[in-house]
Amino acid sequence: MTTQRHEADAMRRAIALSRRGPANGANPRVGCVILDAAGRVIAEGWHRGRGTAHAEVAALSALPDRSLALGSTAVVTLEPCNHTGATGPCSEALIDAGVGRVVYAVADPGVSSSGGAERLRTAGVDVEAGVLGDEAEENIRPWLTTMRRGTPFVTVKWASSLDGRAAAADGTSRWITGPCARADVHRRRSEAGAIVAGTGTVLADDPSLTARDSEGRELSEQPMPVIVGRRSVPRDSRVFAHPAGVIEYPSHDLPGLVQMLAERDVRHVFVEGGPTLASAFLAAGLADEVLVYIAPTVLGGPMTAITEIGVRTISEQARMRFDHVDRLGDDVLLVARPLTTRHLPITKEDD
Amino acid sequence: MTTQRHEADAMRRAIALSRRGPANGANPRVGCVILDAAGRVIAEGWHRGRGTAHAEVAALSALPDRSLALGSTAVVTLEPCNHTGATGPCSEALIDAGVGRVVYAVADPGVSSSGGAERLRTAGVDVEAGVLGDEAEENIRPWLTTMRRGTPFVTVKWASSLDGRAAAADGTSRWITGPCARADVHRRRSEAGAIVAGTGTVLADDPSLTARDSEGRELSEQPMPVIVGRRSVPRDSRVFAHPAGVIEYPSHDLPGLVQMLAERDVRHVFVEGGPTLASAFLAAGLADEVLVYIAPTVLGGPMTAITEIGVRTISEQARMRFDHVDRLGDDVLLVARPLTTRHLPITKEDD
Repeated sequence: MTTQRHEADAMRRAIALSRRGPANGANPRVGCVILDAAGRVIAEGWHRGRGTAHAEVAALSALPDRSLALGSTAVVTLEPCNHTGATGPCSEALIDAGVGRVVYAVADPGVSSSGGAERLRTAGVDVEAGVLGDEAEENIRPWLTTMRRGTPFVTVKWASSLDGRAAAADGTSRWITGPCARADVHRRRSEAGAIVAGTGTVLADDPSLTARDSEGRELSEQPMPVIVGRRSVPRDSRVFAHPAGVIEYPSHDLPGLVQMLAERDVRHVFVEGGPTLASAFLAAGLADEVLVYIAPTVLGGPMTAITEIGVRTISEQARMRFDHVDRLGDDVLLVARPLTTRHLPITKEDD
Repeated sequence: MTTQRHEADAMRRAIALSRRGPANGANPRVGCVILDAAGRVIAEGWHRGRGTAHAEVAALSALPDRSLALGSTAVVTLEPCNHTGATGPCSEALIDAGVGRVVYAVADPGVSSSGGAERLRTAGVDVEAGVLGDEAEENIRPWLTTMRRGTPFVTVKWASSLDGRAAAADGTSRWITGPCARADVHRRRSEAGAIVAGTGTVLADDPSLTARDSEGRELSEQPMPVIVGRRSVPRDSRVFAHPAGVIEYPSHDLPGLVQMLAERDVRHVFVEGGPTLASAFLAAGLADEVLVYIAPTVLGGPMTAITEIGVRTISEQARMRFDHVDRLGDDVLLVARPLTTRHLPITKEDD
């Protein structure tokens, strides 16, 4: 049996449902839709965060009558787990409920949680993998990266003029990009586990490093602020009022910083603390993604958004590819991903 | 009578036809479609350049039988002219042919050629203006600018990395952008009347300043190369083999340069000759459009695509707006237009 159009539609719905879960939790965001034999949606579920039911179990629980599961199709964004953690294995729950077919988007990269598809097949369930895999993967990329590599996904963000300047010659920069671009930054911040700034930026701009809405109110999910560098930061700086606490990292060892954040279960690191730090992450080959917000203005002068990253000649450049190009109000967001990074892959037992 | 859907479709076709004419001629590119009473296309025409029939006359001539013009609708990208030049006035030709309705996109800004719509109306022809005006205007913007302002439309182009560098630290830059972006540059060059480079770029890169296809063959239309600056350029530089001849302009008076090109009937000036010259045009407020080709790479270092443009503090920035954002192969093209320029408006008699 191949994927039907209604199954692809259901997967789109499952991806949308998955986004209702916390972006920034220890567990991935997963959505699940259950279809009857005629292809009609009979239940939906999503994972609400560690310690709560997985998406498949949530969807099964949402059935008006458990017997409806018999011969149904479960469409789920991630391979059903084969692992007993805070909850029992989802593959078993699907088998027990009598589900006849399972369609999933992304394979579970976990060392102990994978194998669900095989278990389902052994029990006689029809299984299809990879449906809308790219779209679903996009949605849980930081979690997948952490599972596969053992270190968090690193986003390096900057905003600049068309000619790559972060400020005018005298350092003034309010505002280069507009409210839509700033709102996008805050939304992305709120989905990250940590936000990293250099001491230079903290001393110069006294940023709060919180994720806020357009009225300046703090969003419900906040990244943990991390200040990198050896200079001392006054205790009355705004960042010390951050609701998620503050980590000071008085070193320039960036691989060590990433490792430290991995140990604190951070899946996604958002680097936006100034040209020196952004350049250092790029020079170290630690960016998995760059977000460049470009405003329709030209500034010239010395205040480049990126300073020096050690490329002496063109053959030494680290090529990327554009992943997204979006207009945000008056501005443009370019999202690029390096073709290679210098993260050390670490195979890590998940739990 | 308001515009029908088939008239908007015909205008799209007329715009497409207009592009068959020379981009770079003294006359604008104009297309015309003639519709019968049922809205069917019965003839098409376009202007092939100065000294040949205007688009409306070309379309009338293409009718299998002149009597078909009686009661027909002429859909034309520019207001029919009211002026006897190399050819008679188009408004009169349309009246004489018995055309019942004229739909046009852009008003003729010419001092002596405008008034066609009024003449048509006086003769009892139903006239509608402004249909798809923005799209049609886009197509003849350099010509319109020259007509309205008396000085040519100035495009400043550069290619850079995501962080605004035109080269690596040692000056190497082959290649930052890819073949699609380069082909787009050559196509745009061929549509310009003049291509301007600084002596620094000519001495450093020895460019041919020709418009070429992907195999390196020269395109049929070539911009006139202009070398700006006081340094002396060796006679065996490639640019001296340019098929359109070379103008040397040993001065830094850019408004004077633009005026000189206006006097040579240049409608569109393409500035792409290096960071110093591009920055000087921006600093002088003479750019009507900037084209920035951005490659998915970060270079850092000293070789910025724009150097210094005199913006000391953020309130001095000259804001622009993005007009187009396009992906070209692996690269992105950002087209921005300044909200204001410092061109001096000159009312000029057209002929």
